[in-house]
Amino acid sequence: MNVNFAERAHNHNWRLDPIVRSLLDTDFYKLLMLQFIWKNFPATQVTSTVLNRTTSVRLADHVPVESLIAQMEYVRGLRFRRSELVWLAGNTFYGTRFIFEPDFLLWLENDFRLSEYVVTESDGQLHITFTGLWTEVTMWEVYALALVSEMRTRSALARLSELELDVLYARAKTRLWDKIEKLRVVPEVRISEFGTRRRHSFLWQEYVVEAMRKTLGASLTGSSNTFLAYKHDLEAIGTNAHELPMALAALASKGTDDELRASQYRVLELWARSYGGELLVMLPDTFGSTQFLAGAPDWVADWTGQRADSKDPFVAGDEYCAWLTSRGRDARKKRFIASDGLDVDEIIDLHHYFHGRIRFSAGWGTLLTNDFRDCHPRNEHDLEPISLVCKLITVDGIPAVKLSDNANKSTGPADLVARYRRVFGSESVEGPPVLV
Amino acid sequence: MNVNFAERAHNHNWRLDPIVRSLLDTDFYKLLMLQFIWKNFPATQVTSTVLNRTTSVRLADHVPVESLIAQMEYVRGLRFRRSELVWLAGNTFYGTRFIFEPDFLLWLENDFRLSEYVVTESDGQLHITFTGLWTEVTMWEVYALALVSEMRTRSALARLSELELDVLYARAKTRLWDKIEKLRVVPEVRISEFGTRRRHSFLWQEYVVEAMRKTLGASLTGSSNTFLAYKHDLEAIGTNAHELPMALAALASKGTDDELRASQYRVLELWARSYGGELLVMLPDTFGSTQFLAGAPDWVADWTGQRADSKDPFVAGDEYCAWLTSRGRDARKKRFIASDGLDVDEIIDLHHYFHGRIRFSAGWGTLLTNDFRDCHPRNEHDLEPISLVCKLITVDGIPAVKLSDNANKSTGPADLVARYRRVFGSESVEGPPVLV
Repeated sequence: MNVNFAERAHNHNWRLDPIVRSLLDTDFYKLLMLQFIWKNFPATQVTSTVLNRTTSVRLADHVPVESLIAQMEYVRGLRFRRSELVWLAGNTFYGTRFIFEPDFLLWLENDFRLSEYVVTESDGQLHITFTGLWTEVTMWEVYALALVSEMRTRSALARLSELELDVLYARAKTRLWDKIEKLRVVPEVRISEFGTRRRHSFLWQEYVVEAMRKTLGASLTGSSNTFLAYKHDLEAIGTNAHELPMALAALASKGTDDELRASQYRVLELWARSYGGELLVMLPDTFGSTQFLAGAPDWVADWTGQRADSKDPFVAGDEYCAWLTSRGRDARKKRFIASDGLDVDEIIDLHHYFHGRIRFSAGWGTLLTNDFRDCHPRNEHDLEPISLVCKLITVDGIPAVKLSDNANKSTGPADLVARYRRVFGSESVEGPPVLV
Repeated sequence: MNVNFAERAHNHNWRLDPIVRSLLDTDFYKLLMLQFIWKNFPATQVTSTVLNRTTSVRLADHVPVESLIAQMEYVRGLRFRRSELVWLAGNTFYGTRFIFEPDFLLWLENDFRLSEYVVTESDGQLHITFTGLWTEVTMWEVYALALVSEMRTRSALARLSELELDVLYARAKTRLWDKIEKLRVVPEVRISEFGTRRRHSFLWQEYVVEAMRKTLGASLTGSSNTFLAYKHDLEAIGTNAHELPMALAALASKGTDDELRASQYRVLELWARSYGGELLVMLPDTFGSTQFLAGAPDWVADWTGQRADSKDPFVAGDEYCAWLTSRGRDARKKRFIASDGLDVDEIIDLHHYFHGRIRFSAGWGTLLTNDFRDCHPRNEHDLEPISLVCKLITVDGIPAVKLSDNANKSTGPADLVARYRRVFGSESVEGPPVLV
């Protein structure tokens, strides 16, 4: 009586269950950065690569190369839809309309494409490398990470019975709701969902965002996921990433040490030509945040805020407040965003610590959209998040380097890292192990 | 594309969503007792009534009288289906075939009916009274309790959003799975599901039983719910209830004190004419289990086991073992069933306490099929179980009495309770408050 014959047949007929359903299914900052690159570096060639920092997990055992390529080809076949482009053109982002230029939107519609890539495996690990124009390579970052992350999820789910799947999601929902209940009693806390790249799955991310939207009111400021912002009328959140200072430093590294050192502020100068207001949020930790602040020209203190992504956020926020005071600015008017491996208790602690001193908000990522720790019905661990990143390797043939405030997050060839440390200082320390 | 038009329309068209879907949706012992009554007391007239012992809950505020009557009329319109009767006739219960006599099955098919009833409300409480032949009244007990219990659930669910409902069931499933995980590491534990009458809902009970069946192997000996046993090839579990000694005592109370006292053993004599083996499980606590055992004729010690339903089961089991030894029987060959408000930790403790001394099994009821404590997404309490019972009031016009081992579970008019206490003794003590 109640059989949906079409649905039942269809469920056995899927050739591909797409993971990335729209080109908007990416972090909003990628679109801001894409316009920045399109405008300032349209001919720059780069390579980037996906890295699994959790080497104990043999990713290639769970994610077959052919299936990954099928998903990647699906994404390459996507185009920005008319209604998506109209939304990008007409929507207000951070209170500002027309953030995207008409020529950029035309280019997105007609000329945007994703670069070539090579996927291989060895020693149980996947090697995914993207090569091409920076405008073609940059967008792969979030798509590729979300694909690998969800394919790993699917591989783990495939081993579970229907009942076990039910239990798994019951436990994860219970976990999520416990977190939401902790946040509901702190109505002034401000959170953005930042969990696209290492999410359990698209549908789970959407569930999490919807649950928060329905229960947390103004505490949820928005989502970094542009597709979810578009689909559910949320604010799209995000500004820029390490990719920009890394690329500009690589290009400047042909020159003198002073030119290399200055490149980290050159990023901000260029950024401010396109964006203003709440989009003027800097990310000072690429080559160490203490030297960044110490050496910054005075106009840098006029920027709206900063995001801390590798230093202990209590320390980083204190340092930022003290720096603002030393530069004669009022920290209470500035924004401080923490985004490195946060979970609910730390978010609430940070909120209480900074509340009234600076406008604090939390960028909550992997432990929001992929917290299945201890949820596995057989107490196995293959649904727990891993530290998956996609990093710039070369820019116009020159190796790219990141030092970071946490030495475990450094990237780049050893000789160049040594030069960068000489130029920027060696403040990055052996931080906590990188979980996510 | 994916809209099931028929289903969507149907979901808005239901005139009644039945709670009791089959006349088999009752405790198996009701069918055994029904045959017993049909055979031995076909002309006896009784009244029984539904009691809410959790008086702090104003049941009538949640369960509208008209809706309850609509559900009750639906049950009255049910008939035993051919395939159900064939199953009762041909299935093996407790290893024995042909437990139900052909004439009884013919009567079930052609003549069985449920009695008249009256439903009223006052002071926020429901008053449901059944009057008629004992064969017509007895089966109402489980149907009526399950109806009221699930209607209360539905009333609470109606106030929740879709997300809150999802969270509620996620938490309840997480709770259930935590219990299952505790039991899986004790593979010798033996449990029967006894939670029909105070279940959250039929579908939840079915979910719970299915989850246990798929994970607990031989630890799940079966379900008291005959419909679930029929539908899922489980053992149907149960023997008899307080209703029988209460009725026989009421009939005997016209006579001498000795006749009244003897009636509790007369039940066993009559029972043994129809049933044997594992169905010879006595329930000694109706008028106090210590006096029951002390005064029992020697053949009572030949019965297979006993069920403890109101005394601390550690004490009751010790007492039973000692009594068996004093009567020269080997306790290790006997069965001891605890069934009073158990939850997982007590079940495991009881298992370890009695393992090797007597064949222990747990009849796990309300805290298995209706444990939604602390699961409510708004932390409200209207999904927590209450103590709902259906008790015999009169038998051929004579009031019925239960003393119980827990004085909080006594029923009957004060003057008669006084006489029964004089005849049987006053061993029942103020036990723990009755939660379920």
